[in-house]
Amino acid sequence: MTMKPIQVGLLGIGTVGSGVFNVLQRNQEEIRRRAGRGIEVAMVADLDVERARSVVGSQARVVADAREVIANPDIDIVIELIGGYGVAKALVLEAIAAGKHVVTANKALLAVHGTEIFAAAAAKGVMVAFEAAVAGGIPIIKALREGLTANRIQWIAGIINGTTNFILSEMRSKGLDFDIVLKEAQRLGYAEADPTFDIEGVDAAHKATIMSAIAFGIPVQFDKAHVEGITKLSAADIRYAEQLGYRIKLLGITKRTDKGVELRVHPSLVPSKRLIANVEGAMNAVVVQADAVGTTLYYGKGAGSEPTASAVIADLVDITRLNTADPEHRVPYLAFQSHTLSEAKDQLPVLPMSEVVTSYYLRLRVADEAGVLAKVTGILAGAGISIDAVLQREADEVGGAATGADGAPAIAQTDLIILTHDTREGTMDAAMAEMQALPTVLAPITRIRKEELA
Amino acid sequence: MTMKPIQVGLLGIGTVGSGVFNVLQRNQEEIRRRAGRGIEVAMVADLDVERARSVVGSQARVVADAREVIANPDIDIVIELIGGYGVAKALVLEAIAAGKHVVTANKALLAVHGTEIFAAAAAKGVMVAFEAAVAGGIPIIKALREGLTANRIQWIAGIINGTTNFILSEMRSKGLDFDIVLKEAQRLGYAEADPTFDIEGVDAAHKATIMSAIAFGIPVQFDKAHVEGITKLSAADIRYAEQLGYRIKLLGITKRTDKGVELRVHPSLVPSKRLIANVEGAMNAVVVQADAVGTTLYYGKGAGSEPTASAVIADLVDITRLNTADPEHRVPYLAFQSHTLSEAKDQLPVLPMSEVVTSYYLRLRVADEAGVLAKVTGILAGAGISIDAVLQREADEVGGAATGADGAPAIAQTDLIILTHDTREGTMDAAMAEMQALPTVLAPITRIRKEELA
Repeated sequence: MTMKPIQVGLLGIGTVGSGVFNVLQRNQEEIRRRAGRGIEVAMVADLDVERARSVVGSQARVVADAREVIANPDIDIVIELIGGYGVAKALVLEAIAAGKHVVTANKALLAVHGTEIFAAAAAKGVMVAFEAAVAGGIPIIKALREGLTANRIQWIAGIINGTTNFILSEMRSKGLDFDIVLKEAQRLGYAEADPTFDIEGVDAAHKATIMSAIAFGIPVQFDKAHVEGITKLSAADIRYAEQLGYRIKLLGITKRTDKGVELRVHPSLVPSKRLIANVEGAMNAVVVQADAVGTTLYYGKGAGSEPTASAVIADLVDITRLNTADPEHRVPYLAFQSHTLSEAKDQLPVLPMSEVVTSYYLRLRVADEAGVLAKVTGILAGAGISIDAVLQREADEVGGAATGADGAPAIAQTDLIILTHDTREGTMDAAMAEMQALPTVLAPITRIRKEELA
Repeated sequence: MTMKPIQVGLLGIGTVGSGVFNVLQRNQEEIRRRAGRGIEVAMVADLDVERARSVVGSQARVVADAREVIANPDIDIVIELIGGYGVAKALVLEAIAAGKHVVTANKALLAVHGTEIFAAAAAKGVMVAFEAAVAGGIPIIKALREGLTANRIQWIAGIINGTTNFILSEMRSKGLDFDIVLKEAQRLGYAEADPTFDIEGVDAAHKATIMSAIAFGIPVQFDKAHVEGITKLSAADIRYAEQLGYRIKLLGITKRTDKGVELRVHPSLVPSKRLIANVEGAMNAVVVQADAVGTTLYYGKGAGSEPTASAVIADLVDITRLNTADPEHRVPYLAFQSHTLSEAKDQLPVLPMSEVVTSYYLRLRVADEAGVLAKVTGILAGAGISIDAVLQREADEVGGAATGADGAPAIAQTDLIILTHDTREGTMDAAMAEMQALPTVLAPITRIRKEELA
C-alpha cells in the first residue's frame, strides 16, 4: 500500500531551507522507508523568487507570497524558516488557523511567544515541532520530551551557541582577546556581521528558555531569564581558570530548586576534566542531570545548513507518523500535557538572579601590600561565603592608571583570584560591593560563575 | 478527561525490574503529565515471589507464573526483564500472540531472534520497544530511529559495555594488567562473577548488531558480527598507545561501505583528543556519523537499576502515546518499515572481517639488531600497506624465554610499534603472517585496530 506523499510548504529558502530541500531530495528513499510515506516539498515561498527557483528547479512551485502556501488545501505541513518575531509569528499563527502542522527552527519566536502559539495549535489539534530551535542537529528536544520521560529532571547545562564557543575556544588556544577573535570569527563566517544576539547571550537564552519549559513543565518565560554574554571576558581570566583546572564556557543553565527554577545564561568555569569542557569550536553540547538516568550528554553541530535541516526533517517524519494518532496522545508541545502547565500543583516560579545559588571565580586587581588578602577574605567570611581556593600572582608593575600623575613610581599590583563554594547571588553581590569599596582594590572586580556540573 | 491508567505486567523483578517499579512510583505524577495517562504496574511475575512482594508491597499482584500475566486481559503492556534466549523468547512471543505490547531490555534476544520477534509483532499489530537494550539510559535507539531520520548514516562507534570500559580506564590510569583489574572490578560489582559476555565482547556485539540494523535498514545479524574482547590487552599496549596520542577503547562499530556493512567489536585505538576517548569508568557513549547532521555523540550510564529503568519507562510512555496511532504509522521496530527490510534495492550484506578496511597498531617484539626494521617495513611495503608512524623503544634485556638454555647472555630485545594507514584486513592478515615468520620476530605480533573517528 502506498500513500500519497505528505505535502510540505516551505516559508523561506535561505541556508537552512536549501538544506531541507536538498537533504529531502538526496535521502528521499531512506526517509520514505523510515516514515512509511514520502515527504515532498510541494511549494516554496520566498521574497527572492529567483533564488528560490535556483534551489528547487522544477521540483516545487515557487511563490513570493507565503500566504499562498498557507491557503493551499493540499499542503499538510508548513515549515517556517523566516526567523524573528514579526512576519514569522503572523504566518505561524495563520498556518495553525488553516489547520496546518507547523515545523519551525525559530527559537526567538517560541521563547517569547510560545505560550500563545502552542495554545492556538492545541485548539486546532495540530502539531508544532521545533527540534531545530535548540542545538541544531542534536536531537535534544526529542531526548528531553521523549527519551527522559521517566525522570524528574534536575538541571540542564548546555553549550548552545556555536559562535561564542568558537570564540572562547580560539581565545583559550591562542591566548587572544575577545575583540581580535570576534573579527576572525566574522571573517570565517562563524559570527554574523551584527553578532549581538550571539555574543550577548540572547540566542542561548532563547534556547535555554525552551529547554527550561520542557524540562520542568512550566510555560516559556524568556523575560525572566538572566542573560549575560562573553564580551567582557579577558584572556587573563581564561588563563587563570586553566591554571585552576577549569575552562570557561558560555552555558545556558536551567535548574530546579526547592524555591523555583533557575534560568540563566552567562560565562561559567567548568572543570577541565568534564566532557563538556572539551567541546571545542562551533560545536554544541547539552548535559542533562535527571533523577533516574543520572547524567547524560548530547553533542553535535548546533547550526549550519544540513545539521539544522536534519532536525527539521526529523520533525517532518514525526508529524507524518503521528498524523494518524489522536491529538491527546501525541507528544505534548512542551513535553507535559498543555492543560497541566497551569494546573500543576508544583509549578515553580522562575527565580530572580539574586536567588540563584552557585559558586564563583573572583579576580581582584589589588595593591601588592600586606593585609589585602586578610581584608578581602574577612569580608567574605563576614558574609558567610566559604572559600574553595586562592591564587595570588606575583606582583607586577603596571603603568597606565596606576602610575601617579606626578610620574611617581607605579604601584606594585597583583591579581588575586578566589574560588568560592556555593553562595546565594544576592549575598555575593553585597560582598562584592564591600570589597570593591576597599582602597586597595584598584579595578572593577571580575566575577565569573562556576559550575561543577556533577 | 481522565483515562484509566495503562496496565503493565512486569516479568522479572531483579535489579532493573525494581528500578522500573520504584521510578514509576516516585515520578508517577510527572510521568502522567507527560504521557497524558497514568502508567501502573498491575502485576509482577517472579519465581522469587517473596522478593517480588518485598519490592511492590500491596501495589501490584505478585505471581510466580509469567503466563498468568500474559493471560490477563487487563494487561496492556508486558515488560520482559528475564534475560537470555530461552524462557524470555517464549514469553515474549506468547505476549505478542496475546496482543500485548512488549518492552524488553534483552539485547541478546533481539540481536539473535529479533527478526522472528518483530515479524510476529508486526503480524499482531503490537509494538516491541527496546530502548534499554542498547547503552542503558542513553536514548540512543530513539536518536537513531527518530532523531536522525533525515540522514544516511555512515557509521556508528560506541563504548557500549560499561564493564570493559571500567577495566580499560583502570588499566590505563593505574598501569595495571587485565587480570588484576578484572578482580578489582568484580569486587566492586562492575563485573559479574562470570564476566565472559562482557570481557569477550559478546554483550557489545549484541548491541552493535541492533544498532547496525537500525542504522542501515538491514535485519539483525549477530552471527555475522566479528567479536573480540579485551582479555589479551596488555598494560604495555595501553602505554604505547598513549605515547602515540591514542587511548584504547572497546568499540562496537558498524559502518556502511560500498561493498556492504561492517559489524565488529574489538579494542580500538582512538585519538586521545576525541570526546569518546575521554569517556571513563563504567560510562557509555555512542558516536554517530551521518551525512546531513555530521557527528553527534550520546553519553550516559549504560547499565544499573534506575538508568535502565529510565529507558524502559520511556518505552512505556511512547507506547502509551502511540497506542492510538494506526500501526502503519508507528515508529518501525528497526527504524525502517518492516516490509522494506527485504525488498530494499540497496540492502547490503554484512562483510566478513577480511573485507573490513581500517588502520592498525602493530607491536612486534624483535631482536635488537641491524636490518630488522628494514625487513618488517619491506614486508608492509610489499603488501601495499602504508606506514603512518613508527615507535622503536630502546633495547632492553629480557630474561625468561629469551635466555639461552645454556645460560648464555639474554638476547637484546626491543618493542617495535607501527601505526599504519587504512588497509584491508585480509591484506594485513597476510602481511602479519609473513612478519611473524621472520626469525628476528620473537613473539606473537600484537595487532590492535585504530579508528580515527573523524
